[in-house]
Amino acid sequence: MTPKETELGAIVWQEDYLQLLDQRVLPGREEWITCTHPEEVAGAIKDMVVRGAPAIGITAAYGAVLAVRNCADLNEQKGRLRFEQWMALLAESRPTAVNLVWAIEQAKKLVAESGWSEAHGRVLALAEKIHSEDLAANHRMAALALPFMDISGLQEPYSVLTHCNTGSLATGGHGTALGVIRAAWHHKLIDHVYADETRPWLQGARLTAWELQKSGIPFSLNADSAAAWLMSKRNVRWVIVGADRITANGDVANKIGTYSLAILARHHGIKFMVVAPSSTVDLSLSSGQEIDIEMRTARELTEISGAQIAPENCNAINPVFDVTPAALVDVLVTEKGAIENPTRAALEALISDS
Amino acid sequence: MTPKETELGAIVWQEDYLQLLDQRVLPGREEWITCTHPEEVAGAIKDMVVRGAPAIGITAAYGAVLAVRNCADLNEQKGRLRFEQWMALLAESRPTAVNLVWAIEQAKKLVAESGWSEAHGRVLALAEKIHSEDLAANHRMAALALPFMDISGLQEPYSVLTHCNTGSLATGGHGTALGVIRAAWHHKLIDHVYADETRPWLQGARLTAWELQKSGIPFSLNADSAAAWLMSKRNVRWVIVGADRITANGDVANKIGTYSLAILARHHGIKFMVVAPSSTVDLSLSSGQEIDIEMRTARELTEISGAQIAPENCNAINPVFDVTPAALVDVLVTEKGAIENPTRAALEALISDS
Repeated sequence: MTPKETELGAIVWQEDYLQLLDQRVLPGREEWITCTHPEEVAGAIKDMVVRGAPAIGITAAYGAVLAVRNCADLNEQKGRLRFEQWMALLAESRPTAVNLVWAIEQAKKLVAESGWSEAHGRVLALAEKIHSEDLAANHRMAALALPFMDISGLQEPYSVLTHCNTGSLATGGHGTALGVIRAAWHHKLIDHVYADETRPWLQGARLTAWELQKSGIPFSLNADSAAAWLMSKRNVRWVIVGADRITANGDVANKIGTYSLAILARHHGIKFMVVAPSSTVDLSLSSGQEIDIEMRTARELTEISGAQIAPENCNAINPVFDVTPAALVDVLVTEKGAIENPTRAALEALISDS
Repeated sequence: MTPKETELGAIVWQEDYLQLLDQRVLPGREEWITCTHPEEVAGAIKDMVVRGAPAIGITAAYGAVLAVRNCADLNEQKGRLRFEQWMALLAESRPTAVNLVWAIEQAKKLVAESGWSEAHGRVLALAEKIHSEDLAANHRMAALALPFMDISGLQEPYSVLTHCNTGSLATGGHGTALGVIRAAWHHKLIDHVYADETRPWLQGARLTAWELQKSGIPFSLNADSAAAWLMSKRNVRWVIVGADRITANGDVANKIGTYSLAILARHHGIKFMVVAPSSTVDLSLSSGQEIDIEMRTARELTEISGAQIAPENCNAINPVFDVTPAALVDVLVTEKGAIENPTRAALEALISDS
């Protein structure tokens, strides 16, 4: 069953219930999970039906709406008590997710300040606001990015290359880097997307390919190691990626392989753009040298879908992220503004200027 | 069962029978197939138990030995006729393999020139010569490469990075690029090998990791996209790869991802070495621009071990090879000699000088 879709959102409010796209089984199956009760929402967050900090925050806010709805049969005193209990349950579903607690605290405050009869309407308005603001931030990033992509003198659309998944599945429904790509396709600046498969987790093959296919944007999946060949042989003008953390000097920590793409892009005279919400910028870190790179299990390289592809007890090194120095970044885009050739001064001004 | 092993050879002659390592089931299982009859050898070649042109030629030569042995009960006239029939069968087992026909023709000529009673001994000597000459060429390449790797002033061993499989499985038992790496480890010039998994076929994960593990050489398997991170963070001094074809100007066609490694190595001040037999050099091609890059099925990217990892009907681009310009090659090694910063003149002199 496919519910009404907005921007391929994986979170859809349907008048009186919530539908979540089950990201655990993509792309093999597109299954929507229906939640009519806050306990179902808490379970979905806990079980990773929904992933990505912004997406989790939005989901929790809709969970609060369902909590108020399910108190309708109770008197106000019992209802407010039950609501608080369910909010506590939701808050525990992914304890480390900052956006989750942030959304729940807003809902609790709002209900406490509201008359009981108006609580449902106000919490629903809050959830929709959290959802739409995330979407708006993504659209704002896309709008800020497009002028850089409108290469003067180019009569024909060109190709872009991206890495990992930065799309609607991780956000309120548009995406960061993939949101920019979506907008560039809509504006006919580009006519093809090359999507790195993104070993070892294959976010490109599993999620980005799925999103691009659903959006009808022409694309090709490629082996990560084919990126240099694509840059030399195909009409690739921009590499566009997201970020997990950006340090004060503009260094960018992102999915392993990003640093490689930045070097290859520079070698081929291709521009390199990083798109991420301003919350990704961590001014407490002076440079990328201060970021510890998470190393994950060898099994992610030696097994695929449960099949052993390397020798038993094969040693493997599996860094999940790498750091791209600011000097290789041509444009850095946040919802607060875009910076060419990012510097410490420009980045600090951008972040503190809000 | 593991037979007597020489240099991890996948082809082992055992006094009166031939053993072949079944490459179809590596690395999951190490199974040796025993051949006592030329028809078994022909079947093994046809069914791809053995792969790689040099390895196929050597296997066919041992097949000729088994053919003579199995004529022992016949009189000379019937024996010579039966031998020719079996040689025809062997020649048909992989019709396009140049080394196969070359080895069989040598065996036929030798038997025709020999007394019947001495044929067995002479064909066995021929097979062992073909085998040992291939091994010798690999060792010669390693010997020519080592002086470049003995970096003056370095007191401690360093790391190298390689791509795809260029080892004993594809050759007589040592390898080209992997043969150089083997020798460098033996001479304590290096202490660690990083092996690209080499998507989409995973030759690195399946075959190179297996060979390095068997040889006791310390190594780590890595995602192809982690190579740049390894170059920046680990003590990598050389990238060492093989070649499928080398054009007259020194451009190198090799497994997809090689070009990417050459750019990344240059960016990090790391040296880049290509190791391949002189038969790989094709002076009829002026430059790499003249090489058609083979594009293979999307399925190699969208499925792994039969499991679907991308959406159904996902478009994918799957170039199998890329071309590294000569300008990015620091050292080119063949069994006829090694060239620094290869040029057309130096390469033509090397090849025609034999």
